[in-house]
Amino acid sequence: MDVRALVFDVFGTVVDWRSGVASEVARLLGEKVDAEAFADEWRSRYRPSMDRVRRGELPWTPLDALHRASLDDLLGDLGVGEVSEETRTELVLAWHRLPAWPDSVDGLTRLKRRHIIATLSNGNVALLVDMAKHAGLPWDTVLSAELFGHYKRDGEVYDGAVRLLALPPERVLMVAAHVDDLAAARSRGLRTAYVHRPLERGPEAPPPPATDPDADLTVGSLTELADRLGG
Amino acid sequence: MDVRALVFDVFGTVVDWRSGVASEVARLLGEKVDAEAFADEWRSRYRPSMDRVRRGELPWTPLDALHRASLDDLLGDLGVGEVSEETRTELVLAWHRLPAWPDSVDGLTRLKRRHIIATLSNGNVALLVDMAKHAGLPWDTVLSAELFGHYKRDGEVYDGAVRLLALPPERVLMVAAHVDDLAAARSRGLRTAYVHRPLERGPEAPPPPATDPDADLTVGSLTELADRLGG
Repeated sequence: MDVRALVFDVFGTVVDWRSGVASEVARLLGEKVDAEAFADEWRSRYRPSMDRVRRGELPWTPLDALHRASLDDLLGDLGVGEVSEETRTELVLAWHRLPAWPDSVDGLTRLKRRHIIATLSNGNVALLVDMAKHAGLPWDTVLSAELFGHYKRDGEVYDGAVRLLALPPERVLMVAAHVDDLAAARSRGLRTAYVHRPLERGPEAPPPPATDPDADLTVGSLTELADRLGG
Repeated sequence: MDVRALVFDVFGTVVDWRSGVASEVARLLGEKVDAEAFADEWRSRYRPSMDRVRRGELPWTPLDALHRASLDDLLGDLGVGEVSEETRTELVLAWHRLPAWPDSVDGLTRLKRRHIIATLSNGNVALLVDMAKHAGLPWDTVLSAELFGHYKRDGEVYDGAVRLLALPPERVLMVAAHVDDLAAARSRGLRTAYVHRPLERGPEAPPPPATDPDADLTVGSLTELADRLGG
């Protein structure tokens, strides 16, 4: 593979959204809810809310606003009672402050030596910039669904990244812990690397597949990716 | 000033385009041309080519393509004779490899500690990413006219940066060595800092104004900007 740029899915691939959201939920809502179950339920509303944008039922809406709407719905559905505007705003910012998986900063730092490294996430630009500063993720630049007015898995997101990087698609490697993200990237001509993240949905949930046989590479961490690509 | 993000003009403000282009011209064209005069003349064609896009006479065209078209014109006008396709491609990439002013890396590194730092340049994304890697510019992210389909000084560029950063415009500081860039940013509600770069156009050219009385700040370097803002 003659890859020049690596573009990364972020939630689940580079950062641990479940632990990060649960710890902020515990801090901000305390005994009112089960923090991990709350994180899981909040995350489960992510795909349906994006799909409403993807089908054109909603105009373009950044992820922060989708998170806020699904938070309001969830708090109502659970009958949590009074939660202030300030607390709701802070809860949405939990997604800006997610912790990196233990291998991410070291792996990205090594990969950056020989490659361009960028996000390619459904998170909005401000979220991704805040997250990078908080978690020390050394991106060369932040690429986001927000730049293209389309959410993954729409092809416009992958095509848009390739266009902005001014590279042939086969010189761009999509790195993700989700096989459907990789399949969509592959359909637009990108190379693909699968990262096995068995704990993304917590220790109780069924783990994702150990490998993606359709991907160019399967690795268990970003440091292993650096070992494989050089860096 | 309660500024959260700093957005930087790049050509002339952060990097020394004239020395960088002249040294690549000297390397690639040798005795065929006067390298510094060639750099000046190439740069002088930048504003008119962007203005054709801004007036709608050309569809959106990334800066790399404008540079290539004006290079071809200039080589023809000067009667330079045969210049290969490969050499023309390399000359356009001179703009991706410009050297930072001596204070830029230290100043940006310090400013990054307490602020979001991003480009806000007419350079296309790939150009800005290459330049950052080459010169060691530690941007949190790259923002470019290319993301908005408008060149500075169109208001859409400043509005677009503010929208992606998800901040009120008065919490964003535009940093530039060009008073018209700052005036356009101010008209969209951004704060402004003028950087005096007396050598941008070389030691023989009339220097730019020493201060911009309309800006919130005037500084002589990015390290002085870090002194003033804290960082």
